[in-house]
Amino acid sequence: MHKPDVIIVGAGVIGSSIAYELSKRGASVCIVDQGEAVKKASSAAAGMLGAQAEIEGESPLYSFAQSSKARFPALQKELQEKTGIDIELVQKGMIKLAWTEEEKQILKRRISLIGDDQKGSWLDPDEINKREPLVSTASLGGMWIPDDGHVNPFALSTAFIHGAITHGAQLLEYTHVESFIVENNQLSGVKTSEGSIYADEVVVTGGAWSARLLKEAGLDLNAYPVKGECFSVTSLRPFLQTTLFTEGCYIVPKKAGRLLIGATETPHSFSEKVQMKGISRLMERAMELLPALEETSFEKTWAGIRPQTEDGLPFMDAHPGYSNLWIATGHYRNGILLSAETGVFMADLIEGKPISEEWKTAFGLHRNFYQGSEMI
Amino acid sequence: MHKPDVIIVGAGVIGSSIAYELSKRGASVCIVDQGEAVKKASSAAAGMLGAQAEIEGESPLYSFAQSSKARFPALQKELQEKTGIDIELVQKGMIKLAWTEEEKQILKRRISLIGDDQKGSWLDPDEINKREPLVSTASLGGMWIPDDGHVNPFALSTAFIHGAITHGAQLLEYTHVESFIVENNQLSGVKTSEGSIYADEVVVTGGAWSARLLKEAGLDLNAYPVKGECFSVTSLRPFLQTTLFTEGCYIVPKKAGRLLIGATETPHSFSEKVQMKGISRLMERAMELLPALEETSFEKTWAGIRPQTEDGLPFMDAHPGYSNLWIATGHYRNGILLSAETGVFMADLIEGKPISEEWKTAFGLHRNFYQGSEMI
Amino acid sequence: MHKPDVIIVGAGVIGSSIAYELSKRGASVCIVDQGEAVKKASSAAAGMLGAQAEIEGESPLYSFAQSSKARFPALQKELQEKTGIDIELVQKGMIKLAWTEEEKQILKRRISLIGDDQKGSWLDPDEINKREPLVSTASLGGMWIPDDGHVNPFALSTAFIHGAITHGAQLLEYTHVESFIVENNQLSGVKTSEGSIYADEVVVTGGAWSARLLKEAGLDLNAYPVKGECFSVTSLRPFLQTTLFTEGCYIVPKKAGRLLIGATETPHSFSEKVQMKGISRLMERAMELLPALEETSFEKTWAGIRPQTEDGLPFMDAHPGYSNLWIATGHYRNGILLSAETGVFMADLIEGKPISEEWKTAFGLHRNFYQGSEMI
Amino acid sequence: MHKPDVIIVGAGVIGSSIAYELSKRGASVCIVDQGEAVKKASSAAAGMLGAQAEIEGESPLYSFAQSSKARFPALQKELQEKTGIDIELVQKGMIKLAWTEEEKQILKRRISLIGDDQKGSWLDPDEINKREPLVSTASLGGMWIPDDGHVNPFALSTAFIHGAITHGAQLLEYTHVESFIVENNQLSGVKTSEGSIYADEVVVTGGAWSARLLKEAGLDLNAYPVKGECFSVTSLRPFLQTTLFTEGCYIVPKKAGRLLIGATETPHSFSEKVQMKGISRLMERAMELLPALEETSFEKTWAGIRPQTEDGLPFMDAHPGYSNLWIATGHYRNGILLSAETGVFMADLIEGKPISEEWKTAFGLHRNFYQGSEMI
Repeated sequence: MHKPDVIIVGAGVIGSSIAYELSKRGASVCIVDQGEAVKKASSAAAGMLGAQAEIEGESPLYSFAQSSKARFPALQKELQEKTGIDIELVQKGMIKLAWTEEEKQILKRRISLIGDDQKGSWLDPDEINKREPLVSTASLGGMWIPDDGHVNPFALSTAFIHGAITHGAQLLEYTHVESFIVENNQLSGVKTSEGSIYADEVVVTGGAWSARLLKEAGLDLNAYPVKGECFSVTSLRPFLQTTLFTEGCYIVPKKAGRLLIGATETPHSFSEKVQMKGISRLMERAMELLPALEETSFEKTWAGIRPQTEDGLPFMDAHPGYSNLWIATGHYRNGILLSAETGVFMADLIEGKPISEEWKTAFGLHRNFYQGSEMI
Repeated sequence: MHKPDVIIVGAGVIGSSIAYELSKRGASVCIVDQGEAVKKASSAAAGMLGAQAEIEGESPLYSFAQSSKARFPALQKELQEKTGIDIELVQKGMIKLAWTEEEKQILKRRISLIGDDQKGSWLDPDEINKREPLVSTASLGGMWIPDDGHVNPFALSTAFIHGAITHGAQLLEYTHVESFIVENNQLSGVKTSEGSIYADEVVVTGGAWSARLLKEAGLDLNAYPVKGECFSVTSLRPFLQTTLFTEGCYIVPKKAGRLLIGATETPHSFSEKVQMKGISRLMERAMELLPALEETSFEKTWAGIRPQTEDGLPFMDAHPGYSNLWIATGHYRNGILLSAETGVFMADLIEGKPISEEWKTAFGLHRNFYQGSEMI
Repeated sequence: MHKPDVIIVGAGVIGSSIAYELSKRGASVCIVDQGEAVKKASSAAAGMLGAQAEIEGESPLYSFAQSSKARFPALQKELQEKTGIDIELVQKGMIKLAWTEEEKQILKRRISLIGDDQKGSWLDPDEINKREPLVSTASLGGMWIPDDGHVNPFALSTAFIHGAITHGAQLLEYTHVESFIVENNQLSGVKTSEGSIYADEVVVTGGAWSARLLKEAGLDLNAYPVKGECFSVTSLRPFLQTTLFTEGCYIVPKKAGRLLIGATETPHSFSEKVQMKGISRLMERAMELLPALEETSFEKTWAGIRPQTEDGLPFMDAHPGYSNLWIATGHYRNGILLSAETGVFMADLIEGKPISEEWKTAFGLHRNFYQGSEMI
Repeated sequence: MHKPDVIIVGAGVIGSSIAYELSKRGASVCIVDQGEAVKKASSAAAGMLGAQAEIEGESPLYSFAQSSKARFPALQKELQEKTGIDIELVQKGMIKLAWTEEEKQILKRRISLIGDDQKGSWLDPDEINKREPLVSTASLGGMWIPDDGHVNPFALSTAFIHGAITHGAQLLEYTHVESFIVENNQLSGVKTSEGSIYADEVVVTGGAWSARLLKEAGLDLNAYPVKGECFSVTSLRPFLQTTLFTEGCYIVPKKAGRLLIGATETPHSFSEKVQMKGISRLMERAMELLPALEETSFEKTWAGIRPQTEDGLPFMDAHPGYSNLWIATGHYRNGILLSAETGVFMADLIEGKPISEEWKTAFGLHRNFYQGSEMI
C-alpha cells in the first residue's frame, strides 16, 4: 500500500465523515477498523437531527449542532451524486413533550431564548393532537421544532465511505491497531494486526473504544461508554409524521411504515446485549407516549455503545504530546447530527485552517485534565 | 404416485404423529401440507408435557393426557433409533403458582384429588425458593408436579415425519387441498393444487385451519383459532431447572441457557403478527413471576395459531356423512402433550380397533351439533 | 364495517395499486389478504422497471409497460406527499448483455425497431467496460437502455396501501376469502373467515393464488405459479451503477451498497423454499457476469411465487359470468413495472371508462378458453 | 469482587473447559471475555470429534485427540447432571472419502497403522453406498471410522461455563484485558476496561486473538488466524447418518434434519464476513460429494476465526518469562475435539501435577522460537 497522508482509526460515522472530507480536499486517506465498518453505534442510531431537542441553547455545542444540521440538505445532494446513495433526509419536524410542570417551563424558556417561531414554538396538548392525533393527551404540551428531522444513519455512514473510496481512500476492515509508531518523539504511523502503516497524520475516531487505543499514546482519555437499547415496530397503517421526543424515549417514523424507538442509557457498559429490564421499560414508556403503539407489530431490538464524556461535550483536538495525532470522539447521542460539521471541523484543524475559537476551546483536550485524569 | 391407503391433510404434530403410527402399522400414507411442514403452531409451542398443570383432573381429557405423557420416554427411544432425532425429553418437574387465595384453593383441591405425592404436592413459598431461588416470593405457594416436563416440539414433529418417511410415507409440501372427491356419496380422495390423490381414508389434521377445509365436506366445524404470542431470552448463567406455570404465563427452561416464555391468548385471530400490546404485557407478567428475568438477554418473539373448540376438548372422530373422512383437531394448547396418544387413538379408530368408549364419547363430533352449528 | 363499494382480494402490489387508484377516485375500498399484506412476490421482487429489457417490442404488453414506466416519476412524488414513503425510484439505466451471436442479433433488431438512441443503443464490450468496469469482458456486448431503472417493491406496495387507507380504505389481513356470495345469479360479496362482506364490485388480485379462489366462481383460470429464488450481497465499496440483465440472471444495485441478484424459474411450484440447486447455479451465473461479485459479502436468500399465464400476458378483465367480478393477475416477473398502469387500467375498466381496445383484447379472459380450459 | 485464584482470558471452548476443570478442583476462577462468551470460533464450529479423520496417526496430537475423544461420553453425563445441558454427543461414525489414488493410499496406510477394524477400516464405493446411499459414487472409496462423531459446540461451551459458575466461577463479558500487571518482575493480574483484577495465575485462551494480548507480556506468539466459512441446509427427509469428510469439505448431520457443511480456509484473516467466492465454491464441492444436497433447503452461512500455528500443533505451556502466565491456543480446527483433554491437561500443568512428557514437549512454547519469532 502506498503511504497515505492520513490514517483514520475507526470507520463509524465520525471517522467516515472526516475521511470523506479530507479525501475530497485531496488527501490520501487510509481508514482502519477493528471490525466491520459502520457496524457499531453508527448503525444503531435513530439518525435524529435534533439540534434543538437534544441540546441546550446558547452553547458552543448548540451552535455546532445547528451548523451541522444546516449542512445536510446540500450533503444529501452531494453524496447522492457521488455515490448513488440516498441518505434519506426527512425534515418533518419534531415535538418535544413535557410531562411535568418543570419540563414545561424548561421548554418554554428555550423557545423564548430561540425567539423564532420557525425554529421552535409551543404546542398545547390539543394542538399536538391536531398535528399527531395518536399522541397521548396526557402530556402538558410540547415544543414544536419544524425543521428537525432525521437521516438513515447506516446510509449516511456508508455514503461517506463510498465517497471517500471514490476519492481514492483505502478501507481496511478487521484490522486491529495495536500501537502507535513513535520515532524520536515523533508519531509516524500505527502498528496493526496486518502490519505497520506510516502516515503524516493519525486520527482516532474509535467512538467508545477510543480510550483503549489512546492509552497506547500515553493519554488517559476521560470518556466512557453508554449502552443504548432500541426497538422497532411496523405498521401498514399511516401512523406518525413527526418525531416524538421526551425524557428517556423518542419515537422516529422511518420509511415504509417502520417506527424506531430509543433508547435506554446504561453508563459504563460495553455490552451489546439487549436486556429484558431495559427493553421492557422502554416499551412501556413508549406506549404511554403513543398509546396506538399497542396495535403495531414488534419487529426487533438492538443496542449501540455511545461514547460519552464528563461534561457531555465531544473531544475534537490534537493529542497534547503529538501534534499530528488527532482525536474526535465523545459525540454521545448526537454522532449522526454532528458528523457533517465534524468532518469539516477536523479537516480544517488538521490542515491548519482558521477555525472557530469558541468551538476549539469547547471541544479541546485541556478539558480532559480538569476532570482529574492524567498522563500515565 | 402410487395410490396411498391414507391421505393426511396437515403436517403439524397431530398429522405427523398419526402418519407415523399408521405407517408403522403398515399403511401407505401420503401427508399433504399447504405450506412448509412443522411450521405453524407445532413449532411455535413450548412443548410442555403439563398434564396436571394444564388440565383439570377427573376428566377424559385428563386421562388421555396422562396416558399420552406416559408414552414419551419410550417414544423418545424409538424415534431416536429410527430417525436419529432426539426429541429432547426433559422431566424435571413443574411448579404451578397460586397468586390468589382462590387459585390456592383450586390447586390444593386438585392435589387432594390426585392423592399421590409423586404426582402432585403443595409447596409453600419458602419451599418453592429452596427449589428455585430466583422465583418471586410474592406468590402464595404452588403445586409441585415432579414428573411434568417438556420436549422440543420442532424435533418431535420432525422425528414423526422422518419416521413416517422411513416407513414409506410420502410428504407433499406447498400443496393445497381444494376439495374432496366424492363419487356416489363415497369420499375417495382429495383434489389438490398438484392434482387429484385417491385413497381409502382421509384424515384432516389442519389445526386451526381445519374448519376451512371441512366446509368443502359440508361440515361446519365449531372450532376457532387462538393466537398465542411468545418470546425467549438467554442467559449464560444457571437459571431455572423446573418449568413455572401460572395464569397467563409460563416459563420453560430450554437447552443451553434459553428460557421460553408464553403465551398470550387472542381468540378468533389467524394473524401471526406479534403485537406490542400482548408481548409487552407478557414480559411484565413474566418478570413479576421471575424477577431475575430482568437480567437476561432478550432473544426473539413469535406467534402460533392454536385450534380451540367450544368445550375445550379436541375433536377426534369420523365425519358424520363420510365414514372414511377423519378429523383430529382442537388440541388447543396441548397439541404436543396429546400428540403421542392421538397418533395411536386415531390409528385405532381408523383401523376399527376397540377404543375407550369414554374417550370416544368425549372427543366425538356429536358435540359439534350441541353447540348450535349445523350441516350446511 | 360499512359496506364498501369495492372489495379487493389480495394485498400485493397489483391489489394495492388498484385500491389506491379507486380510493383516490372516491370509491370506498376494502382490501382483504389471506396473510400479511405485501409479503409474497411483491416484496420478493427486485423492482426493476425494465420495459425494454424484459418485453419484446411492438406488442400490447410493451406499450402497456412503457406507459406504466412513464407514470413512476409522478407517482413517486404523489406517494411521497400523501404517505411520506419514498418508493426509491432510481433511473440509471440497464445493460442487457448478449452472450451468443443469436442473443446479439435479437438485441440489435430490437434496437433498430425502437429507433431511438435515448431508448436503446448498442454497446460493444469495451464500451460496457467504460460504463461499468467490473462487468465481465467475455460478453459479445449489450443493449444500453438509459431510462430503465428500479424502485423498492416493498416501499411501493406499502405506499399504495398507506395511500389507500389515507383515502378511507380498510385493510383486513389474515382474512381468508372462502367463497363468493351469489344471489339470483348476481355476485354480491365474499364470505371470509371473519364473516361476509358485501360490495358492488369484487376484484381478485391474488397473484399466483388467484386461480384457487376463482374456482369458487366457476372459472378454471389457466395461470400457474413460477418460483423465483434470489440472493443479495453487500459491499462497502462502490460497485455498480446500472442494472445488468441477461438470460437467467439480473443484478440490481440497491441502496447503500446492496446488490440484489435474481432469479431462478421453477414453474408450477408454490414452494417458498430456497433450494441449493437453484441458488448455487444462480451464484455461479452471476459471478460469470460480474466476476468482482466474488469479493462481496453474502447477505441472504429468499423466494417469491410469481403468477404466469400460457401466453405470458396478464389477465385483466371481468369474469365471463359475473360482470362485477374482476380479475387482475398473471403479471409474472413484471408486477412492479406494470403495477402503476394496472391500477389506472382496472379502475377505468371498473368505472366503465373508455380504455384502449388493444389492451382490452390483449389482456382479456377470452384467451383463457383458447388454452383448452373451461368453465367447470 | 473477591480475588480469584485464576483469571482465564477468553470464554471460548478452551477457556471454558479449563475454567470448568479448575473450578471443579476447588479453584476460584474468573473468566473474562472481550465480547460475548461462546460467540466466536467455538460456536461457529461443526463440533466434529474426528480424531482419526483430522489428524495423522502416531503423533502426540493424535494420542491427545484420542484421549480427549474418549472423555466425551462421561463428560456428557457429568455436564448433564450438573448443568441440565445436553451436549448432544452423537457417535455414528465418519467416512473419510478418497478422490485420488494418492488420497486412497494415504488412507489405506493410516488404516494399517491403526490395525484395528473397530477404529478404522476401508470401504469400497459400493460399501459406502450401502451405508449412505446418497453419497456420490465417483469417489475411490473411503476410510470408515465407526466411533467418530460430533457434539453441539455451543451447548458444550455453554455447559462448561454453566458448570464453572455452579462451582463458583465468575464470568465477566464485554471486558477488555488491556495489559498485565507486573510488579517486581512478577505477574500479579490483569488490567481490564472494568478495572484491575489480581490473581495467582492467568491463563490466556483467546483463540486467534491471543497473540495480540501476549504482545503486552513481551511474547510474539507465532500464531495466526484462519477464517473458515460454513453453511447449513435443512431437509425434512431422512438424509445422512454418518459424517462425510474429504479434502476441503465436510458434511455433518445435525439434529432434526439439519446438515452443516464446512469449511473454507482463508489464512491470516480476522474478517468474519462470508464472501461469495468461498461460500459458492464450498457449495459446489459439497454437491459433488453428496449430489442429493441439491434438493435440500438452504438455511444460512457464517464464519469463524480459528487459531493456527506454524507446525499445526497447539501451544499449551507457561510463558517463558512468567511462570504463572499460561497459554492455551492454536487448536485450529480441532478445538471442540481437544477441549476435553485440554481442560484436564492445563489444570494439571497449573497445579504442578505430573503430565505426559511427550505432550509437554509437543505443545511447548520452545517451538515458538524455532519458527524465527523472538521475544520483543
